[in-house]
Amino acid sequence: MKRIAESTVRRLSIYLSFLEEIGARGVLTTSSDDLARLGGTTSAQVRKDLSFFGSFGKRGLGYSVPELSAHLREILGLGRKWNVCIVGAGKIGGALARYAGFAERGFNITGMYDSDPHKLGKMYSGVAVQDIVHLERDIKSGKYQIAILTVPPENAQNIVDILVGAGIKAILSFAPLQLTTPPDVTLRTVNMAMELEGLTFALTKRSSDQQY
Amino acid sequence: MKRIAESTVRRLSIYLSFLEEIGARGVLTTSSDDLARLGGTTSAQVRKDLSFFGSFGKRGLGYSVPELSAHLREILGLGRKWNVCIVGAGKIGGALARYAGFAERGFNITGMYDSDPHKLGKMYSGVAVQDIVHLERDIKSGKYQIAILTVPPENAQNIVDILVGAGIKAILSFAPLQLTTPPDVTLRTVNMAMELEGLTFALTKRSSDQQY
Repeated sequence: MKRIAESTVRRLSIYLSFLEEIGARGVLTTSSDDLARLGGTTSAQVRKDLSFFGSFGKRGLGYSVPELSAHLREILGLGRKWNVCIVGAGKIGGALARYAGFAERGFNITGMYDSDPHKLGKMYSGVAVQDIVHLERDIKSGKYQIAILTVPPENAQNIVDILVGAGIKAILSFAPLQLTTPPDVTLRTVNMAMELEGLTFALTKRSSDQQY
Repeated sequence: MKRIAESTVRRLSIYLSFLEEIGARGVLTTSSDDLARLGGTTSAQVRKDLSFFGSFGKRGLGYSVPELSAHLREILGLGRKWNVCIVGAGKIGGALARYAGFAERGFNITGMYDSDPHKLGKMYSGVAVQDIVHLERDIKSGKYQIAILTVPPENAQNIVDILVGAGIKAILSFAPLQLTTPPDVTLRTVNMAMELEGLTFALTKRSSDQQY
């Protein structure tokens, strides 16, 4: 399979959330134009994105909403349950543990870890915070497929090394720094400052549009 | 100016964070190949992304790290301070108020609002939570350029309408649902489930690669 860029996967997620929304309203077909508008791209790009994964849609008839949704769910690995651990039971870790949107998509938070003795045993949505010394053992026993990292930046690379050494292949990091992983491990970083930069770009562009 | 896709702006942010990192280590020039590797794209795409904004780099010599950093900071609107309010002083709102990465990039959290009487007056990094009834007045008086929305989903559209009505043009939402804004308002949504979908895509692709 050809290498798929992160931006393509992101668009597939956007297409799926749109399809699920209109599907819930009873809409049965949609077009690459509709999908393009939502994904901030062109209908040619939509067709190209979907063509990576086989042939969908019929010329002139558009896409079947239930069929394309099912295909995208499968492509995105949403046809099953995933066990997720949160490493770092601070504010962000706690907020994520309580985030209802995860379970809906098949992501079950089944473990939380911290090194702070005051946090051990604290319950988040039915999951007790455990001592981080057990993290490596639990990953090796196959308890989790995905780890969410919400530790302070100075500990982040150290924890990533433990996760990777124990066999984790997918990490979502909230630490505001560049982390290193081997090529067979997928690391995504949620960078709040980067999200705000998308906004200031738009604000700056707006004022220069008005100026000239 | 041509319409710039959100994915392009996202790559510009990634290029900038890479340039700042190597710049801090004293590296003076870099190539579109280096930038491409990091942005998950091709060197042709890097040149195209940067060409939107004028001509950078010299054939065969690559890009000057300090020059390109300065240009990207300007393009992304980072050459100034932005005042930001957080609406919703719950777990995520509180964590964001304490997030050190914002101030470094020129984003100052100068206001927090909530409707819960128990939260009023609570301090986050020197900012007291105010009653949400004052939000509209404060935006109209020009206190904020950007609003971060961390309210429960059922209140989110209502708050967006208040923000937009009072004149806010840039909103970062953490509510896990589709919100509606007029075309002159930029809305970005941080969707945690979508970030995890990027990981499960990679995990699923891995197992099918091994299978065939």
